[in-house]
Amino acid sequence: MFKDTSKEEIDLIAKQAWQAFLQYSKMPLKKRAEFMRMAASELEALGDDLIVLAQSETNLPEARLKNERARTIFQLQSYADACEKGDWMEIRIDTSIPDRNPPKPDLRKMLVPLGPVVVYGASTFPFAYSTAGGDTACAFAAGCPVIVKAHPAHAGTSTAVAKALTKAAEKLNMPKGIFSHVYGEGFEVGKALVTHPLVKAVGFTGSFGGGKALFDWANQRKEPIPVFSEMGSINPVFLLPGKLKESAADIAKSYAGSITLGVGQFCTNPGLIIGLAGEDLDFFISILGTEIRKAAPGTMLHPGISKAYIDKRKVALEQSGVETIAVSESEPKENQGTPTISSASGQAFLNNPVLHQEVFGPYSLVIRCKDIQEMQSVTEHTEGQLTCTLMATENDILENESLVDAVRNICGRLILNGVPTGVEVCLSMQHGGPFPASTDSRYTSVGADGIRRFARPLCYQNWKDELLPEELKDGNPLEMWRTVNNELTKNKVTSSR
Amino acid sequence: MFKDTSKEEIDLIAKQAWQAFLQYSKMPLKKRAEFMRMAASELEALGDDLIVLAQSETNLPEARLKNERARTIFQLQSYADACEKGDWMEIRIDTSIPDRNPPKPDLRKMLVPLGPVVVYGASTFPFAYSTAGGDTACAFAAGCPVIVKAHPAHAGTSTAVAKALTKAAEKLNMPKGIFSHVYGEGFEVGKALVTHPLVKAVGFTGSFGGGKALFDWANQRKEPIPVFSEMGSINPVFLLPGKLKESAADIAKSYAGSITLGVGQFCTNPGLIIGLAGEDLDFFISILGTEIRKAAPGTMLHPGISKAYIDKRKVALEQSGVETIAVSESEPKENQGTPTISSASGQAFLNNPVLHQEVFGPYSLVIRCKDIQEMQSVTEHTEGQLTCTLMATENDILENESLVDAVRNICGRLILNGVPTGVEVCLSMQHGGPFPASTDSRYTSVGADGIRRFARPLCYQNWKDELLPEELKDGNPLEMWRTVNNELTKNKVTSSR
Repeated sequence: MFKDTSKEEIDLIAKQAWQAFLQYSKMPLKKRAEFMRMAASELEALGDDLIVLAQSETNLPEARLKNERARTIFQLQSYADACEKGDWMEIRIDTSIPDRNPPKPDLRKMLVPLGPVVVYGASTFPFAYSTAGGDTACAFAAGCPVIVKAHPAHAGTSTAVAKALTKAAEKLNMPKGIFSHVYGEGFEVGKALVTHPLVKAVGFTGSFGGGKALFDWANQRKEPIPVFSEMGSINPVFLLPGKLKESAADIAKSYAGSITLGVGQFCTNPGLIIGLAGEDLDFFISILGTEIRKAAPGTMLHPGISKAYIDKRKVALEQSGVETIAVSESEPKENQGTPTISSASGQAFLNNPVLHQEVFGPYSLVIRCKDIQEMQSVTEHTEGQLTCTLMATENDILENESLVDAVRNICGRLILNGVPTGVEVCLSMQHGGPFPASTDSRYTSVGADGIRRFARPLCYQNWKDELLPEELKDGNPLEMWRTVNNELTKNKVTSSR
Repeated sequence: MFKDTSKEEIDLIAKQAWQAFLQYSKMPLKKRAEFMRMAASELEALGDDLIVLAQSETNLPEARLKNERARTIFQLQSYADACEKGDWMEIRIDTSIPDRNPPKPDLRKMLVPLGPVVVYGASTFPFAYSTAGGDTACAFAAGCPVIVKAHPAHAGTSTAVAKALTKAAEKLNMPKGIFSHVYGEGFEVGKALVTHPLVKAVGFTGSFGGGKALFDWANQRKEPIPVFSEMGSINPVFLLPGKLKESAADIAKSYAGSITLGVGQFCTNPGLIIGLAGEDLDFFISILGTEIRKAAPGTMLHPGISKAYIDKRKVALEQSGVETIAVSESEPKENQGTPTISSASGQAFLNNPVLHQEVFGPYSLVIRCKDIQEMQSVTEHTEGQLTCTLMATENDILENESLVDAVRNICGRLILNGVPTGVEVCLSMQHGGPFPASTDSRYTSVGADGIRRFARPLCYQNWKDELLPEELKDGNPLEMWRTVNNELTKNKVTSSR
């Protein structure tokens, strides 16, 4: 239905994006923000037609899609606010000291955009992490044109959103090439994009295989470029003994909900639950099992994902030492994912890396550790994660300091007594974590701090005030927070030049 | 003289560094800063003996070495100040909204250290970018233990400095493994370090070959790790027509000094000067030639560097279309580098990538462009640079906007009417640039912003105040700047939790 974009077309698109970069990168923050807000309006204006189309391509329920679109609009708007406010630009000014020996020059630094950014649509988030999603919004805020590769599973939805973005760009007379949309079923188009010399950064949300391939291609270029791949996670949950004794049943019920939410198709889905073997854990497992047996199978995003779920679940359940605890009692229909819980010993987990792998869908593995030392060992042998959750009393935390340290060292977000599903869009959110949760733990893909993935510092030395960008001028015309001679301030620069 | 550290020893050292990380990463910022200041004191306490030793290993003059040590001490002290102040931690707090549907959680984010960092001593800077240099200081500030590989050309100096660091660590009862020092003549030790699973980041200053090899090894690991390699630059200088007409002779004299400073052994040495062919440029070249003929050859850091200079200069001068303009009239002694200037047309530069390569030493190539369009084309075909310099009047800048844009897009620091040599240690400095100037243009290796190379954000969700780190507590006991509900403030958090 959608023809693969050819190599020649990609080359043309990249060249147009570069030309757009030369103009867009110099536009005032206010103009960038205006464009992002217009994009949000045009997305909203697509109305119910877009939801109907997305439902037909993704099997996601209407309410979820409406929420996700609202979130996408909020992202565009709130990152536009952040863009305009400019805190993300990290402005540092050190004024000159002409009579020092040697004289100290005047130095002023701000972030500038990297260049055209390629964003790969995510199958799991047709709006929020696809065409006009978080990566696109961050790139626009940073001053970068964007080339989106539509996810083949919802290419129609992606096309509709792309048209809204193009309309927003045209209404505001943005340079041609500020936004482009391409198609590709196989890996060829994706590879042609990441290896094009005029592409300067990449945003990706999806599987380990896809994200790691982009990372490798990017690093093998003559000019390596930064890739932020968010590659999912098993999001371990640690049931500490005090808390488990207190509220095993409540935790089990809340986790049955988190495991099956959205047919388990969230990168923050809790795929691993770790507790101390004993009657409290047995009780927890029995309640969790009851809930999971009652939970209904749900239709997954597309046949590829449901097949992968069936295959990976099968492999996981066949591993030595893995016991199936509970499976939904309802018969799954075509393309449905069946909620499933299994368990294994700490030793089995330590012995077998297959048990560390994500089974993308409504599946979770409960690990029965023989003691806290084994729990810590399990933690230390677990790969990097987007989130970890501690279900713990205050005493549990205080009495198990080295376990808590070990948990902190493997994750980007550390939740106390909650569930990992639900990713708030705000500045303090960290969505990213030690590899393989993401390819660079120093960045986030959710929240306005994600803008900086696509920008780099540029220092102006000894420039006259009238030639400097607005952001760096003595008078601080944009009224931004700036670090002047090591102090954060909104004041004008008054020191001698 | 210094035996290569064995693989077994490296493994032990990495394990000790990891154990130290578990303790050091939790120490208060104040304690980290105290350690860094103690390191500075112990370095200073080595007195003249260290300078004499370094002179014997590097051929650098006493005054330069004393200045460089003072700079190194200033780095340790000023990064300690920055560490303690904590602006670099990027604290973001969003308070909960319990009555929202769904409830908004309390989220608090701060930077935490990555883990053990390996620093490779730089041959060019025995103090400031070696054992206790900028990378080491940044890693300590971030909360990371450091493993330094001594540069073989000044392993004795490195050993002396390492002892001072160890003494500082012992005096303050820091965990064993917070600092280690290893030796290696060939690439094996360097590779063993970057590929060790417990090493989590790398800092490097040196050649493209060395820096790129570390980058590639790091990315081929099972768990890729960030590498900041600063790999030098040819630091193009653009002579714009108005300025050249005004002050050709002054520019020539000042650049003769910059080209030959420290026998050209700075990564910011101006290796490429670009102007418009014509009588003003001819006059500039004649004066520059006169100065270069008068300049004396100087002894280079070690025989390897002087041999490489002789070889690369020969290759550069033999390229088609390259004319030798001036060579120092003094006969070079052993291991000395001879100041040399050549020239070529814009077309010759565009046709031949060899002319884009750094000739590390007192060498510079003047490009005669036929017009501004060719000057822009030369810029667009020049690889990423640490610095670019515009010698320009205000009119030159205003009349050549697209050339100025092109120049800005290839560099990390943009100097107006100055020389690129001289790198101020301050927050607004950017030392790093688009590849191949550095492996990640989003970071700097000079200035306290370099601390963030070795840290990642961690978000605490729904933690009780008493369990949070000091930096994130409601009361702001460390009196730090924090972004609370999108506003920068030093105020306490008062919103409901």
